[in-house]
Amino acid sequence: MNFKEKLTRIVKKNNSLLCVGLDIDKEKIPGHLFKMSTTPYVEFNEMIIDATANFVCAYKLNMAFYEVFGKQGFEILEKTISYIPKDIIVILDGKRNDIGNTAKMYAKSLFEGLNADAVTVNPYLGKDSVLPFLEYRNKCSFILCRTSNPSAVDFQNLAVSNNPLYEIVARKIKEWDNFGNCGAVVGATYPDELKVIRGILGEEIPILIPGVGAQGGDVEKTVKAGTNKDGEMAIINSSRGIIYASKDEAFSEKAKIQAESIRDEINKYR
Amino acid sequence: MNFKEKLTRIVKKNNSLLCVGLDIDKEKIPGHLFKMSTTPYVEFNEMIIDATANFVCAYKLNMAFYEVFGKQGFEILEKTISYIPKDIIVILDGKRNDIGNTAKMYAKSLFEGLNADAVTVNPYLGKDSVLPFLEYRNKCSFILCRTSNPSAVDFQNLAVSNNPLYEIVARKIKEWDNFGNCGAVVGATYPDELKVIRGILGEEIPILIPGVGAQGGDVEKTVKAGTNKDGEMAIINSSRGIIYASKDEAFSEKAKIQAESIRDEINKYR
Repeated sequence: MNFKEKLTRIVKKNNSLLCVGLDIDKEKIPGHLFKMSTTPYVEFNEMIIDATANFVCAYKLNMAFYEVFGKQGFEILEKTISYIPKDIIVILDGKRNDIGNTAKMYAKSLFEGLNADAVTVNPYLGKDSVLPFLEYRNKCSFILCRTSNPSAVDFQNLAVSNNPLYEIVARKIKEWDNFGNCGAVVGATYPDELKVIRGILGEEIPILIPGVGAQGGDVEKTVKAGTNKDGEMAIINSSRGIIYASKDEAFSEKAKIQAESIRDEINKYR
Repeated sequence: MNFKEKLTRIVKKNNSLLCVGLDIDKEKIPGHLFKMSTTPYVEFNEMIIDATANFVCAYKLNMAFYEVFGKQGFEILEKTISYIPKDIIVILDGKRNDIGNTAKMYAKSLFEGLNADAVTVNPYLGKDSVLPFLEYRNKCSFILCRTSNPSAVDFQNLAVSNNPLYEIVARKIKEWDNFGNCGAVVGATYPDELKVIRGILGEEIPILIPGVGAQGGDVEKTVKAGTNKDGEMAIINSSRGIIYASKDEAFSEKAKIQAESIRDEINKYR
């Protein structure tokens, strides 16, 4: 089964475009877990997954939050990935890239070693750096197009022949989509840009949209601008707003309520 | 001691601008090491370091080649870093970046967890994604400016108000260098661009220059275009051409000969 088939099935099954970001953070996870368990981060992720698995289409693991724990972080990452139900999409968000020879190693680590369904890729090095990821035809590579942070404007909005750079990147993504396995990352904090990018990408290319929730992206605008005509092919990520909804012992119950509520809010506008 | 002081000392001590890239590769390291040792990659790196340490100013470890070995790769990375003599610069080449909150985690992993002297950073997300790296004032962040691969032209050469994007990035690097801890990555395969970028960066900003050797960059042009007026502030990397000079039992001796020879060739043009 390829990525889009897997995505389409789980979107239908859970009636959800929601992706939950599992960004573990020592300062934010409930304190009682450290007393209860020798593997509090794994415990935390597993409880969040148990609570939210019926309301999501995907989980996204940002590699930075795992790498910061060194070797131990790698174990937490592996254990968490293996715990995610097999019909839910796993996105490894590492925003990696390098020249072709080296990009191949990153693609291998993420798709083969860690068994990701999808990854995020930085486009700055151009086509030959992206191709090794696209050789994994049943997977999906979400290429950074317009990121959600304020300084995204520094380079991504520079005018190239009167068009902002992110539009040029979006056109390249469309051009590189020969095997139907390209995606784009576009921040929810820029709904107008999201709409333009959806227009360039057409109906078939999925967009991973972070920035809803703690970062302030508006759900209605995001859904209307980011989905295709069928209200699909958008994966809308929220991390902190769901997993850190509460720090007390009922944190996973609160995460469940949040996940269901954001899923339903998204569906209202599809 | 800050990065530039450390760099200046080792450049003087070893009379070298050469950086050796320790990119471990199962297909390329000498076969007898797998029979001889249970930790062949660590063994390989240690022997290369022993052989070349008098001829280099820096070692660069490209993270992709370690990540591909999973958890074990992390151990090899740690052991290799700890084996590098303390007066030689350690560059962790991960080309990482993410939005500010997350970039902070990458900076912490690399500078604190792994104790790098310098890292490589991708600029696509703009200033707020670079600042968490620059908060480490005694370290150096080499920001990708003009990469060495053919597809570098896809985005980096796009004209923004008649100037290619890499020039805009170079100007931003100059602007962000408030603490004297910015560097730039510019491929040796583009000596004309390297010259323009050195002009924009001025005399004080170090340039990390990969692409000499296996990738085909010309040493004379690289040195003339990349160094400052004192023939310094360039770190010229060669990986495969040195460490895989031979696959037989005398591989480290061959690597030594190659390193000394490239160092001397670089010095001829400083």
